[in-house]
Amino acid sequence: MIDITMKIKEDMKVYKNKASKKPAFKVVSESPVYETDVVLNLHTGTHVDFPKHMIKDGKNSNDYDINHFLGKCYVVDVTFLNRRILKKDITSINLDTYDFILFKTKNSFSDTFNPEFVYLSEEAAALLASSNLKGVGIDALGIEREQEGHPTHQLLLSNDILIYEGLDLKDVEEGVYEFIGLPTKIEGVEASPVRAILR
Amino acid sequence: MIDITMKIKEDMKVYKNKASKKPAFKVVSESPVYETDVVLNLHTGTHVDFPKHMIKDGKNSNDYDINHFLGKCYVVDVTFLNRRILKKDITSINLDTYDFILFKTKNSFSDTFNPEFVYLSEEAAALLASSNLKGVGIDALGIEREQEGHPTHQLLLSNDILIYEGLDLKDVEEGVYEFIGLPTKIEGVEASPVRAILR
Repeated sequence: MIDITMKIKEDMKVYKNKASKKPAFKVVSESPVYETDVVLNLHTGTHVDFPKHMIKDGKNSNDYDINHFLGKCYVVDVTFLNRRILKKDITSINLDTYDFILFKTKNSFSDTFNPEFVYLSEEAAALLASSNLKGVGIDALGIEREQEGHPTHQLLLSNDILIYEGLDLKDVEEGVYEFIGLPTKIEGVEASPVRAILR
Repeated sequence: MIDITMKIKEDMKVYKNKASKKPAFKVVSESPVYETDVVLNLHTGTHVDFPKHMIKDGKNSNDYDINHFLGKCYVVDVTFLNRRILKKDITSINLDTYDFILFKTKNSFSDTFNPEFVYLSEEAAALLASSNLKGVGIDALGIEREQEGHPTHQLLLSNDILIYEGLDLKDVEEGVYEFIGLPTKIEGVEASPVRAILR
């Protein structure tokens, strides 16, 4: 069993290094009971995007039951890529066999936010969007960059394929696993932190 | 597969109906990307308590890997009880067979916080604490009340048995299941919201 979740902490890696994206903690009681409050952007660390994140009136957390968050998974090692994942990098995968495809890239080896992170191109997303996958994941805090209109998000989310971002895949080898990526159960939201494991 | 997690929302049931325990949401971006921040007490809804919650310098979230959050589980139906779970109510269970024991009580049928919720007595906790369980769960927002010094918490947590509170067991029958109760991965904290399922 492998935990593929980033640790949430005040000085963690966040998207574009924005201070507003960092979590804040407040101890509200110390004794006899210790209790903490947290202020958290729902896209912090390892998280899932629901369609509402990018699509007006798109589906939200209420529209997905737990069956959407577990299944057979293939982890693809594309750590040799420097810029982006293209269609040719995934044509050898039999998508019908899996519920989830996770991409292990160079991003997994970076402890700081790299604005030039390896991403999933529109053409690769189009191929994935034609499948019956439940979800696609990557080890960057975003699944795309430098694509006007966010077509990778649009293609996946409009085809009911959830997007898992911020996975920690550095200790994972290419292969077949069971994926369990459970979000918190917050009502009607566009995203959630996730605890994700492979076994 | 059964989702046994409470939904987190602004008007949800919280411990002792304290306003400070209710989550608050703030939409920080609407277009082109929709993003929400949440302010959340770590004991909101379905959650796990680590020893630090009740024990000074006790273990925290960093000290438990994912193996502690999954395993074989027995759900005990004690919906016939009106006040508390006693030792005699659990002596027939072979504790060595399970990783988790979850108690389904009258609490599962109450949509509002009941200050007289059914709880796990000190004597029952003492028996459970002598086992090798990974966790004990209940369908109340607390696992005990009216016991000076919180002995149920102390007994379980000091024996490395995690406490799951706020489970939603109303649709679950007594029996054997696989329990998966994954907390968020927040660094060094005393508790966390959990997404919990049975299968």
